[in-house]
Amino acid sequence: MSYPQLTFVNTIFPSSSPSFISRRREVVYANTLLYQLNVLKETGRYDAFKLKWHKSYSDKPNVWPVPNHLFWDSDVAKWLEGACYFLNWKENTEIDGAVKELVGMIREAQQSDGYLNIHFTVVEPAKRFTNLRDLHELYNAGHLIEAALAHERHYKNDLLMEPLVKYVDLLYETFGPKPAQKHGYPGHPEIELALLRLYERTANPKHLALARFFITERGNPKGQYGRHYYDVEAEARGEGEHQVPAYMESKGAYWYQQAHKPITEQETIEGHSVRAMYLLTAVADLVRVEEKTDHRSYRTALERLWSNMVDKKMYLTGGIGAMEQWEGFGLDYFLPSGSDEGGCYAETCAGIGVMMLAERLLQIDLDGKFADIMELCFYNAVMTGMSAKGTQFTYVNQLASSDKNLSQRAKWFTCACCPPNVTRLLGYIGGYLWSFDSDEEKKSVHVNVHMYSSAQLSILVGKETVELEQKSNWPWDGKIEFSLRGSSKVATAIKLRIPAWAEGWEISPELPSKHIEKGYLSLSGEWLKQNPKFELNIPLKPRFVSPHPYTNQDIIALARGPLIYCLEDFDNSWVDDHFKSLLLDPAAVVEEKEAAADEVGEPYIGLTVRNAVSFIGVNNVHAPHVSLKSTTPEKPSGADELHFIPYALRDNRGGKGHMRVGIRRKR
Amino acid sequence: MSYPQLTFVNTIFPSSSPSFISRRREVVYANTLLYQLNVLKETGRYDAFKLKWHKSYSDKPNVWPVPNHLFWDSDVAKWLEGACYFLNWKENTEIDGAVKELVGMIREAQQSDGYLNIHFTVVEPAKRFTNLRDLHELYNAGHLIEAALAHERHYKNDLLMEPLVKYVDLLYETFGPKPAQKHGYPGHPEIELALLRLYERTANPKHLALARFFITERGNPKGQYGRHYYDVEAEARGEGEHQVPAYMESKGAYWYQQAHKPITEQETIEGHSVRAMYLLTAVADLVRVEEKTDHRSYRTALERLWSNMVDKKMYLTGGIGAMEQWEGFGLDYFLPSGSDEGGCYAETCAGIGVMMLAERLLQIDLDGKFADIMELCFYNAVMTGMSAKGTQFTYVNQLASSDKNLSQRAKWFTCACCPPNVTRLLGYIGGYLWSFDSDEEKKSVHVNVHMYSSAQLSILVGKETVELEQKSNWPWDGKIEFSLRGSSKVATAIKLRIPAWAEGWEISPELPSKHIEKGYLSLSGEWLKQNPKFELNIPLKPRFVSPHPYTNQDIIALARGPLIYCLEDFDNSWVDDHFKSLLLDPAAVVEEKEAAADEVGEPYIGLTVRNAVSFIGVNNVHAPHVSLKSTTPEKPSGADELHFIPYALRDNRGGKGHMRVGIRRKR
Repeated sequence: MSYPQLTFVNTIFPSSSPSFISRRREVVYANTLLYQLNVLKETGRYDAFKLKWHKSYSDKPNVWPVPNHLFWDSDVAKWLEGACYFLNWKENTEIDGAVKELVGMIREAQQSDGYLNIHFTVVEPAKRFTNLRDLHELYNAGHLIEAALAHERHYKNDLLMEPLVKYVDLLYETFGPKPAQKHGYPGHPEIELALLRLYERTANPKHLALARFFITERGNPKGQYGRHYYDVEAEARGEGEHQVPAYMESKGAYWYQQAHKPITEQETIEGHSVRAMYLLTAVADLVRVEEKTDHRSYRTALERLWSNMVDKKMYLTGGIGAMEQWEGFGLDYFLPSGSDEGGCYAETCAGIGVMMLAERLLQIDLDGKFADIMELCFYNAVMTGMSAKGTQFTYVNQLASSDKNLSQRAKWFTCACCPPNVTRLLGYIGGYLWSFDSDEEKKSVHVNVHMYSSAQLSILVGKETVELEQKSNWPWDGKIEFSLRGSSKVATAIKLRIPAWAEGWEISPELPSKHIEKGYLSLSGEWLKQNPKFELNIPLKPRFVSPHPYTNQDIIALARGPLIYCLEDFDNSWVDDHFKSLLLDPAAVVEEKEAAADEVGEPYIGLTVRNAVSFIGVNNVHAPHVSLKSTTPEKPSGADELHFIPYALRDNRGGKGHMRVGIRRKR
Repeated sequence: MSYPQLTFVNTIFPSSSPSFISRRREVVYANTLLYQLNVLKETGRYDAFKLKWHKSYSDKPNVWPVPNHLFWDSDVAKWLEGACYFLNWKENTEIDGAVKELVGMIREAQQSDGYLNIHFTVVEPAKRFTNLRDLHELYNAGHLIEAALAHERHYKNDLLMEPLVKYVDLLYETFGPKPAQKHGYPGHPEIELALLRLYERTANPKHLALARFFITERGNPKGQYGRHYYDVEAEARGEGEHQVPAYMESKGAYWYQQAHKPITEQETIEGHSVRAMYLLTAVADLVRVEEKTDHRSYRTALERLWSNMVDKKMYLTGGIGAMEQWEGFGLDYFLPSGSDEGGCYAETCAGIGVMMLAERLLQIDLDGKFADIMELCFYNAVMTGMSAKGTQFTYVNQLASSDKNLSQRAKWFTCACCPPNVTRLLGYIGGYLWSFDSDEEKKSVHVNVHMYSSAQLSILVGKETVELEQKSNWPWDGKIEFSLRGSSKVATAIKLRIPAWAEGWEISPELPSKHIEKGYLSLSGEWLKQNPKFELNIPLKPRFVSPHPYTNQDIIALARGPLIYCLEDFDNSWVDDHFKSLLLDPAAVVEEKEAAADEVGEPYIGLTVRNAVSFIGVNNVHAPHVSLKSTTPEKPSGADELHFIPYALRDNRGGKGHMRVGIRRKR
């Protein structure tokens, strides 16, 4: 079992030692699931599989040619998936009832040939599979497959799996390399990773083959009748020569959906960031599944695109995507902090996608560089996406607010991909904490600990159970107490991630060899037998971090452990310019202060900087340049202190919506 | 006479004291005019008014829906206009012959109803006036009017003026406020300023009225049948709902052509930068022409849009436009140095447009802030647009090269607006040096000196001639010797511009009052009678300048007088990264060194900085952020010296094409 969507059941978060993660899960269970269920009902999504007309189907698309309701299938599917994960943890009659009713509706919605999609059944039945480029048919199918996998596992019946397998049969007939088949692939990847997970469940070679086809065919310049599939498809539906969806830079700019060339030939990460992440997650998984196939070109593409992304196109918070137009990547090092400074998108779903990709990459190459980014994204780019109460969400996550885009969450979105994505992520988050493999014959277990928290992992090896418990107030405290049970009968080896940002670490009892390989510290079975209880200590101290100088962002931000901090007007009420003219001295002393949970929902550590506050002179005329000599010197501020709060906890306490992560560096 | 296109004849550049300007004019006369004439012939433009089919008319447009040859009328017109200006200075049989032949062809090309346009006569005769938004019909007409004005003045016949006046009659009938008329206006302004100049010549109220109509109607949301004219027009020609030219951000985004709302309601300067400049030049001129009309709302709009541009959207060089997609303005303070850093366009024509606007604004408000920008643009954003030999040109003027966009000029362009625009500008540049007005009755003259050079101005007042001569090696030397002749019989007052960047200045003989009002120093008639020879001295010292901190460009550039300098690999051959990682210490001592003309065509002052060169650490992994503590410290460079050359003189000596204006500031 090697998917976090499966292995999460091996992890429990004991209520006796609550953690950041367990508190977030409590919120989702207590508020979010029912809140989102209610929104699904109010907006028409819940009943949509009944295939009746909804008045919103007549609405003009906000973004041509994509009907606003096109994603409804996936909104429901992601909620279903998340609900099943949470039901696995605790029963809930209302949620259980809704899941069952939805599954019933979905079964009824399936057409006799296996087709299963709301829009193309109710609104445009004749246009099925005519616009893979823009219309999210296969994306929706992918999310339904993922929902079916979660449903089957929890309910131990195939009420949802059955129609999905039937639908996949239809897709397998429709798409493929044969001359009579469509040589197409989804504009928005998702089904690829879902099919690979389905294959793990069914071992049906058709499921693997279809995933492989979608991946290998992608970007083929001569895929259909010697031409690009999307060109042929567009012509077939009579698309005008100069009709271009607003999200594509120009006609044929298929880098938007990572289909400008075959994946193995893509040099840089481009286009829509969520699509890129879902696609590469599937590529990494294909490499893993087909480990006996020579997939070196995919491996090097993964490495190349990952590096390009992380080194040159990722924000301090782990967020990706600077460009609003195509919800995705800009030029190398183009990472402005906000929409008023050139752009900053960092969609919540994209952060989740980075986590998904990092997790898959860890499966084929256990390297802490992937886990570091996975954790960075979780605690910043992703967790900032939901309010403390679990009923408000973000889509875009700028690193600095502006008058036009305040730092404020919303109740819901027309395109509502992000809220249920956070829900399902927190449902199976236990699967991200660690990965493991066991050998029943050899009676052995390997555990790789990627993230720290308070959690307990149980692994059944034959008739024996190995239990590894970690206890910690991470990310606030760097002390993690481990207890290993059952290792007397099962040979157990553990690897512990030492984050790259750690300035030091200690383990006790003392370890004979403290060699770290690719970011992981190995604890041998022998040592563990003698030391089933041990403690890792990674001191968490505030530190100033900065992005690459080529970003032209001469800013510093405060970090502590995996958390990135920000300034909010709530704590710094004097601000009136979104901290744009603020200067921060990196030599300043930073103080930590424990703060109560209150509206933030989490007892947290705030950071305070004293006597280091000044403002750059910006009010004099510089037009269009000014002699250095006549530049207004820095002005001391009235404020003596700056109070920082973790970015993930922003916008929970009211205020004007002024916020900034990276502060102009005082030199 | 109040247009530089008219007053330039009052100025001569004595060959006895050559200057930067006169040397540039010599180059255009000796090389550029004939070189461009040859290109016009080779490319088919010269013969196009013969109205025969040219094979290129079948080419697919590079930018839909704009045929590549659509601007040919204006390319010829601008060359004609420039040729007439230069012929006024020195005769040239070949140029004279070409002008006459072209005028003959243009006359023949006119349709019986007065219509005069190559594309809409030869290629799409049925589509006349059906797409004012995109197709440059009225823009071409404007340039032809300007050519006619220059031609009539030089040749003292109406061979070109006659058909243009007839064409304007047709336009006057076609466009206007009457119900049966089209309530349209050009997508690319130009005809407005041409019509105002035509009105000055003809005093025909129709010419003024048409200009006023185009200006006041622009951006009317209910101009045609209660809707925006461009919407109605697009619908009428059957434009698809989702067809949008690539240069427009989205359907109906008429800010591209400054037609999103009436000019008086436009808060910020937006869209295509050349269009904006040509439009506002006409607005300023309308305010001047109709001085008795209450045009306060246009005046405040001009002031507001000028300030927004200069303070927030102008490069160090005077260049405008950061966005390639719409060849125009980006967000406030969004001014990256190059295409690899987010964009930098700064089209040559846009720089010329800024000069045109500044000159018109000086007419309605004598404020040195306009003249400062006019001079900055001329010596940097504009003069960088032509090679020393006058046979290579730029369209885009980035402030930093990149591997994709080297610092290199081209021989010509498909869209060739810039090369002949530089030609005609240098033809009448004398008109920018100073403005004047005289009163025959009072026998008085006022001269405002805006720019310094070696030049002589002659003004006829009744039967007396007043001559003002300035002698200077500007912009290399800040000493300017003035001689005033003829002021004994004509009361003469002079105002001298003191640039805002001047750190000091002296005038001798001593002046009793040295009060500067809005950037100009007044010399009274009395003082001038006693001191017909005087000397102004503005010490030119190298200075470091920087843009506004909100640009997030923490750079410094070297300036000296009006000139902005740059680094080129020719002088700094060690460079391999376009000076991207270079750090420059603003405390460094800067040395001046006189350099011979050589390939640069101009004896110039180079600047050298010693022992101040280091590089920022950029090679270590920062992904996506790095602790400040672990940032690689600056590395000393192997190079001891940095050699700077004026930006205007770049790319004349070969090299790899690495260049940068603003250098990362060492703190």
